[in-house]
Amino acid sequence: MAAHRKRTKGTVVVDTVGIVGLGLIGGSLARRLAQRGIRVVAWNHRPHPYAQAEADGIFCKSTLAELMTAEPDVLVLCNPLKAMPAILAELKPLLDEHPATTLTDVGSVKGMVRNQVKAAGLADKYVGAHPMAGNELSGWQAADPGLYDDALWAVTVDEPTDYRRFFAVASLITEGVGNRIIVLDDETHDKAAAMISHMPHVVSTALINELTANPDRNVAAALAAGCWRDMTRVALTDPDRTRAMVEEDALNVEVLLRRMASRLTDMADQLHAEQDQGSIVRGGSLKGDAAAHIRKFFAAGDPFRRYKAQTSSAGDFPARELEIPEAGWQQTLLFSARRGEAITSFIHPHQAVIQIRPAI
Amino acid sequence: MAAHRKRTKGTVVVDTVGIVGLGLIGGSLARRLAQRGIRVVAWNHRPHPYAQAEADGIFCKSTLAELMTAEPDVLVLCNPLKAMPAILAELKPLLDEHPATTLTDVGSVKGMVRNQVKAAGLADKYVGAHPMAGNELSGWQAADPGLYDDALWAVTVDEPTDYRRFFAVASLITEGVGNRIIVLDDETHDKAAAMISHMPHVVSTALINELTANPDRNVAAALAAGCWRDMTRVALTDPDRTRAMVEEDALNVEVLLRRMASRLTDMADQLHAEQDQGSIVRGGSLKGDAAAHIRKFFAAGDPFRRYKAQTSSAGDFPARELEIPEAGWQQTLLFSARRGEAITSFIHPHQAVIQIRPAI
Repeated sequence: MAAHRKRTKGTVVVDTVGIVGLGLIGGSLARRLAQRGIRVVAWNHRPHPYAQAEADGIFCKSTLAELMTAEPDVLVLCNPLKAMPAILAELKPLLDEHPATTLTDVGSVKGMVRNQVKAAGLADKYVGAHPMAGNELSGWQAADPGLYDDALWAVTVDEPTDYRRFFAVASLITEGVGNRIIVLDDETHDKAAAMISHMPHVVSTALINELTANPDRNVAAALAAGCWRDMTRVALTDPDRTRAMVEEDALNVEVLLRRMASRLTDMADQLHAEQDQGSIVRGGSLKGDAAAHIRKFFAAGDPFRRYKAQTSSAGDFPARELEIPEAGWQQTLLFSARRGEAITSFIHPHQAVIQIRPAI
Repeated sequence: MAAHRKRTKGTVVVDTVGIVGLGLIGGSLARRLAQRGIRVVAWNHRPHPYAQAEADGIFCKSTLAELMTAEPDVLVLCNPLKAMPAILAELKPLLDEHPATTLTDVGSVKGMVRNQVKAAGLADKYVGAHPMAGNELSGWQAADPGLYDDALWAVTVDEPTDYRRFFAVASLITEGVGNRIIVLDDETHDKAAAMISHMPHVVSTALINELTANPDRNVAAALAAGCWRDMTRVALTDPDRTRAMVEEDALNVEVLLRRMASRLTDMADQLHAEQDQGSIVRGGSLKGDAAAHIRKFFAAGDPFRRYKAQTSSAGDFPARELEIPEAGWQQTLLFSARRGEAITSFIHPHQAVIQIRPAI
């Protein structure tokens, strides 16, 4: 830890962080940053967390204007997405008065937030961020600095993004929060988030809808064990929050739902053909086109299975240094993320230490 | 415990149990029964577990013929399904010599096993069973009596099933193993198993196939958190075992995959329409037909959500007694299962104690 701090000395450009919204994500972040010695100023739409937050060393402010007088290097929007347009409108004149402040957020979709930021005239100050942290709880009372233990953040940039603003947010995450980052464009982020979260949430919900519609639902529920419990867990948590998340990433979810529907229909067709071919279980192995197709279906995910076996058995991943060019840095960092690498720290603003994970 | 034993005194009709196959399921069952004071005789296709099994009080036999000379009241087939035809053929003359022995099994599909039992000429001795117990491990070395803690078994019967044979198997499970049962016909069982396990296994596999085919799979895998981990866990465990399970219940899985595909396509269509209607997030709630449809989709599983909340918060479920008629007992027990009830013990052969769980 001491060696790490020493190596990265001089790269910490963030002295004061502003947090807008002390819910689960914002509250946990504020508490973690304060614990790690960063000056944190915070505002919440209701002051109920303030007494406890102040006791945790967080300086709470009664208005956004007051918060901005603390001149935060980075302002992190942790408010619900639906409050975003109103908050951005209120921040616009304040940020114009404090041009050094960089704006970021923690929303689970990035394209839509950037559009809202652009609409508010704040695009030049903005870098997107999305921490892969959270649980089924919500609100300040659930806030816990440990929520960010070992977390990875996506940081999203576009072509006009100012590198110094990117670096302020990136080093806040690596040095301030102590987390890893991958750098993406909004579209790559939102597609990937649809793949591993938003679309699967719809699938999980469709499973419980199917059971609920099943005439033998009580029998099925009685027989349900680990498979069913795991595959429907996310369908049980606040369906309104899930619906908002899916609607905010609608196009990407739509495309993946159609692909999944096609995969399921194809398997149904092959199972049908296999039954027609009358080859089901004669105490031996199955023959025929359908059987071969079904075998392929069950083997197609082997690269992911190998990746999981490698990542779960691995100790520390190997590290190397990555030079970040002044021009085209966005592409350099995106390609690094596509190879499965993550930034763990910065040696100086244009030299990062990356962790090399197995690729799929 | 003492009171329970006293109440059910006289209902234990099983003195000796035969176990065919000392893998995870059979080995765990043999150890649990021996631990609970039942005489257990066992055969395995290879004798490697015998030394340890004998040390656990299990009497191991070198042939099925030798096992049958111990005159087991119930013979439990715990062999892999693909070995079933050969084992049934070998058992046929032995069971004809020992007509008092009732045949059962622990397979995860029941219609196919009954067909194999019928083909072997053993239908009149057979009662199906399927314990909801298991894990990712396999083989004797993973056998653990605790695998059956709190387990529920499906017991499957048909119209010609002899009640005394049903009762031998049922009371073996409730008194011998100390578990609960629900009584079903094969079709109801296999459809319900397709709903809560076989079909979801295909969906989980389709998810990892989709990720593997995704050009940004490494980015997606880096962002993956709890939702993805839970929804793909079963896709990581032995895809060949999953394939066999799905093929053995092919028709039921096929029907459910088509229904799921239709649900996912419908949501994709609604998300598409909602984007066309241009109503996505203006900081407020969405209007229009598509938005209403999407809200309905996310609310459709509420009865299951309520059921989960009730069952997870519940302490002991209420109990009552159920009279089991001599004629039509199959229907009486099936209707009880459909109401969400499970048999926990027998007061005498035609009077059971049932646990009443919330219905969906």
